[in-house]
Amino acid sequence: MKAILVIADGMADRPVRELDWRTPLETARKPFLDQMAKTGVSGILDPISPGIPPGSDTATFALLGYDALRVYSGRGALEALGSGTEILPCDVAFRCNFATVDENLVVVDRRAGRISNEDATELAKNISRIQIEGALGFDFIFENTIQHRGVLCIRGSKLSALVSDSDPGRVGEKVLAVKSLDNKHESKRTAEIVNKLLLEFHKVLKDAPVNKKRIKRGLLPANMILCRGAGTIPKVRPLSQIYQIKAACVGATPLVKGVCKVAGMDLIEVKGATGTPQTDYVAKAKAVIRALESYDFILLHIKATDVASHDRNPKLKVEIIEKIDSALGYLMSKIDPDKSYLAVTADHTTSLATGNHEGDPVPIVITGPFVRRDGVEKFDERSCAKGGLNRIKGSDLMPILMNLLGRTTMFGA
Amino acid sequence: MKAILVIADGMADRPVRELDWRTPLETARKPFLDQMAKTGVSGILDPISPGIPPGSDTATFALLGYDALRVYSGRGALEALGSGTEILPCDVAFRCNFATVDENLVVVDRRAGRISNEDATELAKNISRIQIEGALGFDFIFENTIQHRGVLCIRGSKLSALVSDSDPGRVGEKVLAVKSLDNKHESKRTAEIVNKLLLEFHKVLKDAPVNKKRIKRGLLPANMILCRGAGTIPKVRPLSQIYQIKAACVGATPLVKGVCKVAGMDLIEVKGATGTPQTDYVAKAKAVIRALESYDFILLHIKATDVASHDRNPKLKVEIIEKIDSALGYLMSKIDPDKSYLAVTADHTTSLATGNHEGDPVPIVITGPFVRRDGVEKFDERSCAKGGLNRIKGSDLMPILMNLLGRTTMFGA
Repeated sequence: MKAILVIADGMADRPVRELDWRTPLETARKPFLDQMAKTGVSGILDPISPGIPPGSDTATFALLGYDALRVYSGRGALEALGSGTEILPCDVAFRCNFATVDENLVVVDRRAGRISNEDATELAKNISRIQIEGALGFDFIFENTIQHRGVLCIRGSKLSALVSDSDPGRVGEKVLAVKSLDNKHESKRTAEIVNKLLLEFHKVLKDAPVNKKRIKRGLLPANMILCRGAGTIPKVRPLSQIYQIKAACVGATPLVKGVCKVAGMDLIEVKGATGTPQTDYVAKAKAVIRALESYDFILLHIKATDVASHDRNPKLKVEIIEKIDSALGYLMSKIDPDKSYLAVTADHTTSLATGNHEGDPVPIVITGPFVRRDGVEKFDERSCAKGGLNRIKGSDLMPILMNLLGRTTMFGA
Repeated sequence: MKAILVIADGMADRPVRELDWRTPLETARKPFLDQMAKTGVSGILDPISPGIPPGSDTATFALLGYDALRVYSGRGALEALGSGTEILPCDVAFRCNFATVDENLVVVDRRAGRISNEDATELAKNISRIQIEGALGFDFIFENTIQHRGVLCIRGSKLSALVSDSDPGRVGEKVLAVKSLDNKHESKRTAEIVNKLLLEFHKVLKDAPVNKKRIKRGLLPANMILCRGAGTIPKVRPLSQIYQIKAACVGATPLVKGVCKVAGMDLIEVKGATGTPQTDYVAKAKAVIRALESYDFILLHIKATDVASHDRNPKLKVEIIEKIDSALGYLMSKIDPDKSYLAVTADHTTSLATGNHEGDPVPIVITGPFVRRDGVEKFDERSCAKGGLNRIKGSDLMPILMNLLGRTTMFGA
């Protein structure tokens, strides 16, 4: 028995005026998702708990069966890990932006004019050559990821992730000094290190050849690194140990890949998977089918639904759901229905009206040989609320799936 | 106001091919259970939590309102207690089998040819006469229960239940040395005591007159005691203190009786209650009605549904459900509907397809004067999922029943 869990990021929504007070799932033409509802067991699911808007990181931890409230320790380290940076348990990692500041360190553009990958890569090299004086006793890694994004990782003993951001979050404000959040020695030391390092970065960046060229070409110089979301890697029991399974993730978003890596899952790279609405959905579905040969559990993560919601674009969100539906049709045509469970859900509600993650429950459907098929006919927020699973917690899903796969152990006798 | 809780062991199931993808509850003709659904409030219930397969011991603790994850401490002591052995809080108790081993202590038969009660009783007497040298400072009790089954209880200070089994679980393997599971002094000492004791048992058993007779008659000698499931008695507040009630249990299974005894319930013996599919269901129902005169809360436990599931016998499971239904009809005809609540549930799902306890929720129905009657028409897994209780936890049931009886105290003011 195998299981595939499809997580469409932020796919769940609230009824929205532009769609005649229906949700995107209630609007889209999605024969395969509705077929799943008809043959499976449905329900609604609170990723963390009712009313609490989850991040994709905390929600993915929960959907993998972990207690997110206990294990979560910040986004930075997860994103760094998912981007391929080798993070150690002692490291403190930040999410970073290349940004443009003026001579008073006031932010002019938080994305340095949406700098290209090429320029960012060149500048990251300049930064990485910086020599740290021995006295502070730490090492650092800086890597750019996509466009203006990057990760900063501080390595050494006696560090703490309980420090604030240097990113003021908006233009026109001065870069913030990173501060201790708990007033302890470790966090004060970490803040001091990061503040010194960011000023060193600034010195190097403002004279970097790439930036001189950018100014000549009328582009904004990427002369500052803004950092936020300090985090460490949570230490959790890998899925392979808990359930005796081989598990893999197909997805393109560094944050989610980081969570999966923490859970001990293998990451499967797919050509054409971009994390954008233009992602190649069927290429991802094909990668899942190939992976089924050597894995027991595969998480397929699709980011595009969330992007459309944050952009408050109802039409695009409906279109993406219809594309996801086609990819599911492909999956359904290729799996052995007697030996496979297929589950679809969202990691959270992202509201087209607010553009934010919201705390509403998400729909969930599970198909496979031994589920208690209910009378639900459609896969959407309100139809699934009438389903046989009723309302479950995010962290309930993995035990339910693993029990169907015969991978749970009895508690008691 | 009084309440009766009927727990049919492992009655819940998954849809199964042999019953045209219905469950046994969905297949059985059960007018009284369906009558309860029509007049009561229904729901589904996770004995422990979604996806976690419970044992009958942990599930019964939960259904009696206890936090099983906190109080559970192994099966051995519960089964011993339920079999009538006087277990003290300091004792470590094991479940035992009379077994047949060869001269190298390799197991030939784990049940000593399903030894008769008479032979086992005689051999237990031989064992009990063994004198322990004072040096080890402990005492022991060995009692046979049914056929090849028995309990071993080690009494003394500084003992621990964190020790492994001597039972290798299959024939052709050597009896295992009991070992410490936490490498602490108490468990090492307990393991040492048990290992010495089991060898003493072997010496006495192999020369016992009963075994010599058995060999002459061509039967396997019961020349070894295998032990497993070391446990202690959980210390919990009795139901009488929590809810100010008199509570009793009608049931034949030692394990469940042990749990009820820990909860401070009286055990009511019923002639004809055997824990097998041939048990006298109506005799048990009659015992419940008699007990209603002097008790506020009665748990009626029926084991046979679980036996049929483990034997993967759909027809038998359906038949047993129909017999339980008749017994419920008797109960319903005898109780005062204005003064009694009657609840029916299962302690867990036991799948006919896998033969194992599974983590799917179980149906629950509560009838009585003040329940919020819902529109559910049938008592089964899928119908109850649409009921007014929605999905509750096992440990929620007892507070709900006790509140209906006016036995809960307000939290707050």
